[in-house]
Amino acid sequence: METILTSPTQEVRIGPEHPFVVIGERINPTGRKMLAAEMAAGNFERVKSDALAQVAAGAHMLDVNAGIPMVDEPAILAEAVRLVQELVEVPLCIDSSIVAALEAGLKAYQGKALVNSVTGEEERLESVLPLVAEHKAAVIGITNDESGISHDPDARFAVAKKIVERAESYGIPRQDVLIDPLAMPVGAVNTAGVTLFTITRRVREELGCNTVCGASNISFGLPDRESLNTTFLAMAIAAGMTSAITNPLVESVRKTVLAGDVFMGLDENCMAWLKFQRAAKKAAEGEQEEDRRRSRRRG
Amino acid sequence: METILTSPTQEVRIGPEHPFVVIGERINPTGRKMLAAEMAAGNFERVKSDALAQVAAGAHMLDVNAGIPMVDEPAILAEAVRLVQELVEVPLCIDSSIVAALEAGLKAYQGKALVNSVTGEEERLESVLPLVAEHKAAVIGITNDESGISHDPDARFAVAKKIVERAESYGIPRQDVLIDPLAMPVGAVNTAGVTLFTITRRVREELGCNTVCGASNISFGLPDRESLNTTFLAMAIAAGMTSAITNPLVESVRKTVLAGDVFMGLDENCMAWLKFQRAAKKAAEGEQEEDRRRSRRRG
Repeated sequence: METILTSPTQEVRIGPEHPFVVIGERINPTGRKMLAAEMAAGNFERVKSDALAQVAAGAHMLDVNAGIPMVDEPAILAEAVRLVQELVEVPLCIDSSIVAALEAGLKAYQGKALVNSVTGEEERLESVLPLVAEHKAAVIGITNDESGISHDPDARFAVAKKIVERAESYGIPRQDVLIDPLAMPVGAVNTAGVTLFTITRRVREELGCNTVCGASNISFGLPDRESLNTTFLAMAIAAGMTSAITNPLVESVRKTVLAGDVFMGLDENCMAWLKFQRAAKKAAEGEQEEDRRRSRRRG
Repeated sequence: METILTSPTQEVRIGPEHPFVVIGERINPTGRKMLAAEMAAGNFERVKSDALAQVAAGAHMLDVNAGIPMVDEPAILAEAVRLVQELVEVPLCIDSSIVAALEAGLKAYQGKALVNSVTGEEERLESVLPLVAEHKAAVIGITNDESGISHDPDARFAVAKKIVERAESYGIPRQDVLIDPLAMPVGAVNTAGVTLFTITRRVREELGCNTVCGASNISFGLPDRESLNTTFLAMAIAAGMTSAITNPLVESVRKTVLAGDVFMGLDENCMAWLKFQRAAKKAAEGEQEEDRRRSRRRG
């Protein structure tokens, strides 16, 4: 059970035998007015710096979204994909709700991309899956359909199963479908956590598919979202989640993912944990030294 | 599947339908020289302040241990149990490797105590279980035996099964046996996390028993133990762990437990989470106010 994504120079493997995969979420104008305005005006400087910063912070892949109202989203998404691929080596996740934009992004992409996303809605299945098959890409299948997002884990699992089977009918092997069990805000839906853990386990055991989720929606509307998000991420990893679209620039997210690998037995001799801690210590010492220098200059 | 512990005024229920139970670990002279010396000299002031502080920090129960070399441990443990029960209302966990000390502690205790612990070793089973049965207490069963601690989850599970069955033969119902699947240091045993999660799940599904663990041993010898411990705790909760002997004075531990309840669907409308966050905010504002007052006085 292994999902392989590639760029011209790198390969990322998602699966229960591999360290958890972090897909950087930052290149997304939703809720980021400045970024949206810049991208709409053809200015991709922030896209580039976000790409570099996320890879430096340990992102294994990057999500690229250009969902800005009233613009030529296909052209902007394709341009963003091209520019990001010139700059960083990690594989990309091409993210849009507009099929023409996914198509333009896939055409611009070099390698095997992850398409974000298809749902269980007939119209989406029939328009997105042929595109995924044509480009030999992988795809995220979100567990909602025409009736919306069910609170019943069985209903959400049934949507996952439908997506996987339909994908196979298009020649997309099930290891190339990553199921997103959907993290609902737990403040509104108290069963959101349990439901997600249950679906995640069933998707692995019964469908043999990997899973991905957006790991910050779960805490929407509650105080101290960072603490909630990291605990949730750890619990999702324990339930078998194999990747997440999240923000690697948040240190606690990065730490939780690395500690998760340690406890899932996927960090041999804790090498990645020790390496991260050494780098963090070095960075902290560097900052202290900088502070001392500054205070000497002032003094 | 519910383990009930009591004091004269309080009842604690451990089980998958209840919020996670934190057993405060601080009243334990192991590795605390000052506390050991004071307890040996009959000075229980620190025991009392540790009891109050842990309950204030949200401990649902307190572990009481008097393991000091070359002292009359039964007398000291009994005295500590009496004094702590005078001071706080939570049920206690009576902790010793010496059977006579467990006996003295149980005699001094008012209510239904948790005994920490029995192992799968014949000599321990035959000496501790009759005592637990006589006092109608509950007991922690640790999954090692004469052959030591196995790295094989099946072997550890077999020890758990043996303890539960032997307890039943003494008239101790299985809901009064809490299994400790043993958190080994993951730095030395890379499979420690996966093994613990596996045993925890099997103990619930196949034995119908609750589980408890010491949640800090897992990170022994590694840097940034707090981050490792909180991620591990979250993952153990997701695997079905129902209680832990840990330090509620560490804020991240407290937060992880509360967030764990949120995601397990055990914190209705996130009331406990919101209450904790409000109290934390108020405490932080109080500190800021105090700082301002101090700087005005100095100024």
